[in-house]
Amino acid sequence: MTKNLIDIAIIVGSDSDLEIINETVKTLTEFEITYKINIASAHRTTHHLKECIESAQKSGAKVFIAGAGMSAALPGAIAAETVLPVIGVPIMGTSLSSLDSLFSIVQMPRGAPVACVAVGKSGAVNAALLAIEIIAITNTHLRDKLIKYKKSAADKVIEKDSNLQKVGIETFIKERNK
Amino acid sequence: MTKNLIDIAIIVGSDSDLEIINETVKTLTEFEITYKINIASAHRTTHHLKECIESAQKSGAKVFIAGAGMSAALPGAIAAETVLPVIGVPIMGTSLSSLDSLFSIVQMPRGAPVACVAVGKSGAVNAALLAIEIIAITNTHLRDKLIKYKKSAADKVIEKDSNLQKVGIETFIKERNK
Amino acid sequence: MTKNLIDIAIIVGSDSDLEIINETVKTLTEFEITYKINIASAHRTTHHLKECIESAQKSGAKVFIAGAGMSAALPGAIAAETVLPVIGVPIMGTSLSSLDSLFSIVQMPRGAPVACVAVGKSGAVNAALLAIEIIAITNTHLRDKLIKYKKSAADKVIEKDSNLQKVGIETFIKERNK
Amino acid sequence: MTKNLIDIAIIVGSDSDLEIINETVKTLTEFEITYKINIASAHRTTHHLKECIESAQKSGAKVFIAGAGMSAALPGAIAAETVLPVIGVPIMGTSLSSLDSLFSIVQMPRGAPVACVAVGKSGAVNAALLAIEIIAITNTHLRDKLIKYKKSAADKVIEKDSNLQKVGIETFIKERNK
Amino acid sequence: MTKNLIDIAIIVGSDSDLEIINETVKTLTEFEITYKINIASAHRTTHHLKECIESAQKSGAKVFIAGAGMSAALPGAIAAETVLPVIGVPIMGTSLSSLDSLFSIVQMPRGAPVACVAVGKSGAVNAALLAIEIIAITNTHLRDKLIKYKKSAADKVIEKDSNLQKVGIETFIKERNK
Amino acid sequence: MTKNLIDIAIIVGSDSDLEIINETVKTLTEFEITYKINIASAHRTTHHLKECIESAQKSGAKVFIAGAGMSAALPGAIAAETVLPVIGVPIMGTSLSSLDSLFSIVQMPRGAPVACVAVGKSGAVNAALLAIEIIAITNTHLRDKLIKYKKSAADKVIEKDSNLQKVGIETFIKERNK
Amino acid sequence: MTKNLIDIAIIVGSDSDLEIINETVKTLTEFEITYKINIASAHRTTHHLKECIESAQKSGAKVFIAGAGMSAALPGAIAAETVLPVIGVPIMGTSLSSLDSLFSIVQMPRGAPVACVAVGKSGAVNAALLAIEIIAITNTHLRDKLIKYKKSAADKVIEKDSNLQKVGIETFIKERNK
Amino acid sequence: MTKNLIDIAIIVGSDSDLEIINETVKTLTEFEITYKINIASAHRTTHHLKECIESAQKSGAKVFIAGAGMSAALPGAIAAETVLPVIGVPIMGTSLSSLDSLFSIVQMPRGAPVACVAVGKSGAVNAALLAIEIIAITNTHLRDKLIKYKKSAADKVIEKDSNLQKVGIETFIKERNK
Repeated sequence: MTKNLIDIAIIVGSDSDLEIINETVKTLTEFEITYKINIASAHRTTHHLKECIESAQKSGAKVFIAGAGMSAALPGAIAAETVLPVIGVPIMGTSLSSLDSLFSIVQMPRGAPVACVAVGKSGAVNAALLAIEIIAITNTHLRDKLIKYKKSAADKVIEKDSNLQKVGIETFIKERNK
Repeated sequence: MTKNLIDIAIIVGSDSDLEIINETVKTLTEFEITYKINIASAHRTTHHLKECIESAQKSGAKVFIAGAGMSAALPGAIAAETVLPVIGVPIMGTSLSSLDSLFSIVQMPRGAPVACVAVGKSGAVNAALLAIEIIAITNTHLRDKLIKYKKSAADKVIEKDSNLQKVGIETFIKERNK
Repeated sequence: MTKNLIDIAIIVGSDSDLEIINETVKTLTEFEITYKINIASAHRTTHHLKECIESAQKSGAKVFIAGAGMSAALPGAIAAETVLPVIGVPIMGTSLSSLDSLFSIVQMPRGAPVACVAVGKSGAVNAALLAIEIIAITNTHLRDKLIKYKKSAADKVIEKDSNLQKVGIETFIKERNK
Repeated sequence: MTKNLIDIAIIVGSDSDLEIINETVKTLTEFEITYKINIASAHRTTHHLKECIESAQKSGAKVFIAGAGMSAALPGAIAAETVLPVIGVPIMGTSLSSLDSLFSIVQMPRGAPVACVAVGKSGAVNAALLAIEIIAITNTHLRDKLIKYKKSAADKVIEKDSNLQKVGIETFIKERNK
Repeated sequence: MTKNLIDIAIIVGSDSDLEIINETVKTLTEFEITYKINIASAHRTTHHLKECIESAQKSGAKVFIAGAGMSAALPGAIAAETVLPVIGVPIMGTSLSSLDSLFSIVQMPRGAPVACVAVGKSGAVNAALLAIEIIAITNTHLRDKLIKYKKSAADKVIEKDSNLQKVGIETFIKERNK
Repeated sequence: MTKNLIDIAIIVGSDSDLEIINETVKTLTEFEITYKINIASAHRTTHHLKECIESAQKSGAKVFIAGAGMSAALPGAIAAETVLPVIGVPIMGTSLSSLDSLFSIVQMPRGAPVACVAVGKSGAVNAALLAIEIIAITNTHLRDKLIKYKKSAADKVIEKDSNLQKVGIETFIKERNK
Repeated sequence: MTKNLIDIAIIVGSDSDLEIINETVKTLTEFEITYKINIASAHRTTHHLKECIESAQKSGAKVFIAGAGMSAALPGAIAAETVLPVIGVPIMGTSLSSLDSLFSIVQMPRGAPVACVAVGKSGAVNAALLAIEIIAITNTHLRDKLIKYKKSAADKVIEKDSNLQKVGIETFIKERNK
Repeated sequence: MTKNLIDIAIIVGSDSDLEIINETVKTLTEFEITYKINIASAHRTTHHLKECIESAQKSGAKVFIAGAGMSAALPGAIAAETVLPVIGVPIMGTSLSSLDSLFSIVQMPRGAPVACVAVGKSGAVNAALLAIEIIAITNTHLRDKLIKYKKSAADKVIEKDSNLQKVGIETFIKERNK
């Protein structure tokens, strides 16, 4: 059924990663990109993970986004099973300043590429944008949307700058902290 | 002229990065992917960099691959100018255990995504593979090649394993070190 | 118009950096140094950033101060466009113990110098003092002010020390924590 | 056939890890422990890895030892497939001071335990000793051997100390460096 | 008296480590594994520590689990006195991002193996599971329990995934945060 | 006047360090060791610092204890001016996980020794104990006190252990958290 | 005598730092900037250091450049004695990946600003350029030279890029490695 | 017999540490301080270590110096057995940039103070100087020697500086590298 076709398959290693990955979801939604999101652990549910990967590929997924913390094997485990691009989002943990998830995701050995983005919410937003950029290579409509999104983001910065010029730094900070 | 059309635009921040990035080039060549490679520094040749980016886009480039060391601003500087996917390869330097180039490339703020791969040669190979995966989304011929490449890589591991069973670890290591 | 002439141009990469950079502003104000502050992202508003840099130079700015977090490309992006001294203030983020912004700012390749100061509020104050020291090289009035400022800072330490001798450590800490 | 029964199953992610893991092999051999060693990558040969794990379990393996570098997913991938104890040996790479393989191996999420030992050769020796300690719980003969091994190691230290007392530090160092 | 026989001996370096190590205790209890838990510092109570180790061995302990923070010498100090397997749990401190306890536990010199698990609560749970895996090598009943435990953990992930499909990410997160 | 004679001279770089260094003071007080505490910054009050050092030496100080954060130059600055032993206590800051103060204090070049202790409160207590150990070399009364202190600390651990055996871990934790 | 007037005062903490700092000297020489270079340790020769600082100021020095390794107190010690701008160059040591000298130089407390540049040779070149930029604020002739230098550096990159286009990456690398 | 009386007891964890610790020995010898040096591992020869500690105390040792690498438990193990001051020298290993031995030595819990010095040769020299400073508290002859040593070290720096003024940096470096 075409209604189940998706562009992006998101997988998180634990439901505790969902709060961060919701930034990915919100960004995809803003671009009206279809996606499916699953919880599947590389270490605890290898069979379920494999099913999610296969099901996503059957549903037409073009890009995988995987969020995981600690020894974040999930993005690499997906990369081992597919030749679709895999984007990895390192999730913050309670120790080691997030270096564990970052290194586990970015330091992939040759042959199993993973596209690593920044730790946490910024990375989660950028994972969505990167996936959209990938799809937009052959979709000029989507590319236009991306250009508008970037322009709108730039405009917001410039607007804030204008406002800063008007109200001054003290007032600006006060209003921002409200 | 179609002969100038390229799939991948590679940019390095310094000619000292070429030795590592040659792994990217060799992998792209193995897949018969067209590419162009430029030296353009984000900090020393902003105008030239902009020209390289624009020229690459006019030549039909679908993905950027950027290699840089130290405060590796190059991948982000490209991401600021394009909505094409940008892959960043951190290059080793002489201090700080490569954490500087890795963090500069991976920790992009929201709105300017960069796909970071591993530090050094493994990352350089994977940058090529990731770019090919991206192009292969809409190119089944290329996707088949990727599947063969992965199978061939797997076969080599299995062949080495067979050889290890035959000759034993001592002999295997000696032959490997020859 | 002379009323628009400024000594220092401050640029932050995001309005979230303003709370820290306000320490820079307060210190400049204490010294009656004219400044202009802009929000301009190296990754999201390259054109606006260029305008801010050019406008600052036209307004007579002698030193740039740039505050940014994560992959903090802003100070380097300014250094790429000017031969005026650029001071970079690393801003704390939510992961990696601020090593990302520190390394991105301090590890500049040869040819694009950035003067990096400490992470956060101490760095923001020192960025202002460093800029004032730079201007004071040819301004004996300002140099005298700096000497007085340093002396006053020293006096405050000595005064606290005297108070500590009088009230003892327990009372001193209690009064300090009020 | 009993001749194929093994006590320990060693798996390395790449043949480049064999030089380090040979220390494990040598230690097991010293204790006359049967073992099998395979090359199987968690990222490149998932099916072959699964076969190695299953085959090892059928051959009576009681403990797994896995050596891997970079984003060292191998020990965790084995832990995902077995309830036998898995010992992970982080292998040094060319960047990040080995923090990548160490963090990838040690920071396992709850439910998939891996016993991480030190980076490199010391860890490779200790992986063997740890595995032998595990087997020795129900094997008093082996336990006696371990006690002798420890005593012998202690005696070597004490002998070196005696020699140091005799020849003095300068001579000792010279002879050691021969 | 058989009633004092134990399978696992847990030792913590300070009573402040008990909150983390309680996760170990809860996991052992879930598996009906007998254990004894002692507070004994490697630096402050060497004699008491030795007594705890000897008493544990006399009570039939098969595995030691040791939790400690900062310069976490405890697991190594136990490993120096026994040929039973020792599992070390690094406990978070107030500085250095827990790298101190992690490195002190994992970087054991050859001859004194310690099985290091992840920092904090995940590590504490896995220490118990690893110990149970070790005992289960010769206890098929326990091995079956482990397989059930793993299956149950997998089922919980799959159940959460099902629920996520039903209620959607926004609702899922809200219910999770309640 | 003998009443001004002191054994230990404590200097902190900022009054914000006093809360940590109060642990040093409390420990010295427990041992009835005379001390003097000053606030004197190596970077802001070089002259005052020199006076404090000289005054301390004239008052008979035998050991210096210096607490400082960030680029903690204070212990080294004292070591440059005296041949008395200098103990450095790294104080936690707001970024870089305290690595800045730790490295600044411990990595002294040859010729200017500083005895570095742990970051924060544990280090502050140990700085006092180390200073007392130094004085106690030629003071058997003080050495006996140290032996009693160590025994008392050991007894407290053993008492807690006894209590843990009685009440069990759950109750123990609850009472501890009250 | 005017012949002794200098623009830049360079101080290194040890003669082992001179090899790196020679890059600073060469860059200043290229710009025909007068300088004086001294060896003076913050920890071993405080009086000599003070004399060097005073002498430099009397000779008209406008900027200090200080290179030091390990616990690199030198730049801060100069900043404590002057209101002239101080630039610090972290020098690589034999351990800790240069983090010690970097953190000691960059993490200055408020009130004693130091302008930190990159570790090693890149930093040494940039220290010179930064100092020249500072002097050039009121020297249009020097500013023009800086602009030419930057243009020349850019031209070299572009020339290398042209050469790369001509000879291809394999030949380029071979010629570079000659 | 008085001929066996020693001032300083040096213990290293492995004979591989002797090359670094020889710097300690050479410095003590320069000061004509009596010492004894033993090899005794905290993890492999606990009984022998205890004997060395007791024997050293009986021989009148006033200070312990302990050098160790990796999870460097030795200084802490000595501190657990004595109320004499213990100085720890972190020895470089083959991974983790020496952070393992540094953190293991410096991050001692309260109650077991260790005086940590710099990693490697600088630390080994300073360990000797620190020990001599401790002994010199009650030995004015030794204190005078220390003052002379410091003066001589300062004179050497100043002499090198004079030479640098004479021959210039290029010649100085060439002669230094001979």
